[in-house]
Amino acid sequence: MPASQPFSYDKLFAKNSQVSTRAPSRHAKYDFAVAYPDPDNLPLEGLVESLQTALEREGRDLAYYPEVNGLASLREWVAEKLARDRNMKLTADDVVLTAGSGEAISMVIQALTDPGDVCLTEEYVYLGTMRQMRRFGSEVVSVKCDDQGFISSDLRATLKKLTGQGKKVKYVYTIPSFQNPLGWSMSLPRRKELLTITKEYGVPVFEDDCYWDLRFEGEDVTSIHSLDETGQVVYCGSFSKILAPGMRLGYLVAPKGLLERALSFKAGGGVNQFAALAVDEYVRHHLHEHVDVQNEALIVKRDAMLAALGENFGGIAKWRVPKGGLYMWVTFPEGTDMAAMQETAFNEGVGYYNGSQFSPEGRGKNCIRLCFGHPDAKTNYDGVTELARIMERHGVMPAG
Amino acid sequence: MPASQPFSYDKLFAKNSQVSTRAPSRHAKYDFAVAYPDPDNLPLEGLVESLQTALEREGRDLAYYPEVNGLASLREWVAEKLARDRNMKLTADDVVLTAGSGEAISMVIQALTDPGDVCLTEEYVYLGTMRQMRRFGSEVVSVKCDDQGFISSDLRATLKKLTGQGKKVKYVYTIPSFQNPLGWSMSLPRRKELLTITKEYGVPVFEDDCYWDLRFEGEDVTSIHSLDETGQVVYCGSFSKILAPGMRLGYLVAPKGLLERALSFKAGGGVNQFAALAVDEYVRHHLHEHVDVQNEALIVKRDAMLAALGENFGGIAKWRVPKGGLYMWVTFPEGTDMAAMQETAFNEGVGYYNGSQFSPEGRGKNCIRLCFGHPDAKTNYDGVTELARIMERHGVMPAG
Repeated sequence: MPASQPFSYDKLFAKNSQVSTRAPSRHAKYDFAVAYPDPDNLPLEGLVESLQTALEREGRDLAYYPEVNGLASLREWVAEKLARDRNMKLTADDVVLTAGSGEAISMVIQALTDPGDVCLTEEYVYLGTMRQMRRFGSEVVSVKCDDQGFISSDLRATLKKLTGQGKKVKYVYTIPSFQNPLGWSMSLPRRKELLTITKEYGVPVFEDDCYWDLRFEGEDVTSIHSLDETGQVVYCGSFSKILAPGMRLGYLVAPKGLLERALSFKAGGGVNQFAALAVDEYVRHHLHEHVDVQNEALIVKRDAMLAALGENFGGIAKWRVPKGGLYMWVTFPEGTDMAAMQETAFNEGVGYYNGSQFSPEGRGKNCIRLCFGHPDAKTNYDGVTELARIMERHGVMPAG
Repeated sequence: MPASQPFSYDKLFAKNSQVSTRAPSRHAKYDFAVAYPDPDNLPLEGLVESLQTALEREGRDLAYYPEVNGLASLREWVAEKLARDRNMKLTADDVVLTAGSGEAISMVIQALTDPGDVCLTEEYVYLGTMRQMRRFGSEVVSVKCDDQGFISSDLRATLKKLTGQGKKVKYVYTIPSFQNPLGWSMSLPRRKELLTITKEYGVPVFEDDCYWDLRFEGEDVTSIHSLDETGQVVYCGSFSKILAPGMRLGYLVAPKGLLERALSFKAGGGVNQFAALAVDEYVRHHLHEHVDVQNEALIVKRDAMLAALGENFGGIAKWRVPKGGLYMWVTFPEGTDMAAMQETAFNEGVGYYNGSQFSPEGRGKNCIRLCFGHPDAKTNYDGVTELARIMERHGVMPAG
């Protein structure tokens, strides 16, 4: 019999386990840090009514475990939507429903990368994706961008350099529509060049198209997936930004071989059937109208933020006018340390993330991302004005 | 520039990815294979009303991403329930909400096991757990049981032998209340012995208490968790069997250090907030009554199955009268090959799983598990009668 010692887990943990670093969310008075949709336009009544209708029809099936790929009728709807809106050729069997796009992203990362493998991203990249890439040991390398997307010469040079070093580049991750955090959309020529260049290197493209529905103006650009005939493109989307993050519903579209591998990392069975039934019934009848209403509201919010930016930072900082999505990317002159300001600004009422949080290489302390979707228009206006006052008070406002 | 080849994922998959082997569910006319709750007693109206109430109060928060550990008020309710019902000392901070108990089990397995590590289980073990253990490379070893639970001398001998071989035993997994698939509950003395023996070896106990609420008769036995003062016991439960599997809600209770590691394997953020809000509101007002109604219905279903077993297999096979839960374990004489019969029986109308599917060592082809919770009483009666007819037809009915 072994000597009895106080019980401890210390020697029992798996090698690839980590201490989870997720801190509870916190919200500043002016909360521009995290992208949430408009709380005044959540379709709560519509979702409850849709749920009731769906449960009356097929509520008894709630006694079954949902299939691992999720509610069949909602997968069919997603396939039809992507065919109609994104010119994609697919069937419901190509779709797996996931807990937001976050789960889809995690499944693809785990299916394609071993520790030490490389993932390429835009110059600034969605935090949640970068966190998951690093969680599973990937090296994240960014490619230079302008407001058309990846700069093709840098993409090619980066692939050449990394493969020359013997590194395994497993995919290029992109948010081509209303990019998070930069706000632009990738142009059609750049989408084609992305496919041409990655194809030369046998590298998949992972297209995260979460924001496509939130278009305020401008011409649509077809999906990267629709431009490819080889199965090279993995695609994900989400209901978080068009319905609500709390619905925890997204989807993954990939060729069969990859989908089967990705599913081996899906825990907890098929997505929540209760939520899926409500969403399935809701989107068939109301989504188009709901998105229109939501985009109208977002335009007003965006414009209020633009007005305050102009009044307070005109001639001092630079920003794009986003034609959709939820993000305003503001660049202050080199040397303006918005990273150092961040905690102070939060404590004094204005929450934002600074550029270095989105940069794989930690660049961009002079940049900030402002999310304009959740606060109302007046709050957006007042918050940006308040940020200017805070910066002045602490002597970090650049000269105009 | 590399030579251009047809695009393929074959060389891109991660080493620990697998092809997912989950087949779509199929249901026989008499469907005793998978454990589902009673579809006639799903609280659909109550859940919709509860959802409406909860959304009126806090629906705006659906615009936020749920915290990774899940809706705080439901975690509080779980902590109160477990303190009241299972004598556990805990707070809401010790609880993480998960997509059914399946996600909780997957997270614990990933946090505690590297490929080659050993997990101990009862002689026959829940399929979903065994699948996840093997998915992540664990060796699954069973310990002999009688209808009181683990036979303590075999547990001790197994631990001694495996540790003597230099193997790392990472935990003992048990379903102590109305065990799946065997149907018994572990006695209090055996629970204490389990803790004493595992403590000597520094091995945690993973207590899966999914069926505790489904008690029809007999005395309650306190949780293993409540008998331990050292943090050695990890605990999970589920709303699948007391509300509905389609709600995809369960919970994990573990010491902080383990919980933080387990969370690093949770993809897709906090559990579905839409479902959690409905359940949180529902269980506070209606769960007690709902469970009573459900158990009354289950008793009738159980008894109908028992009647048919007696009439058709009396003196031929053996079974326990389960005092709760959803499972009837029927043992035919040695040599009766119910594994070989299984597909035939399914095709002729009766679905069941045979013992070898639950045995880490593949034993028990002469045993079957019958789930009595989903079909109505008459169907249970007719289905067991039909099984006898099928066995007679194919010449596999043992002599009485």
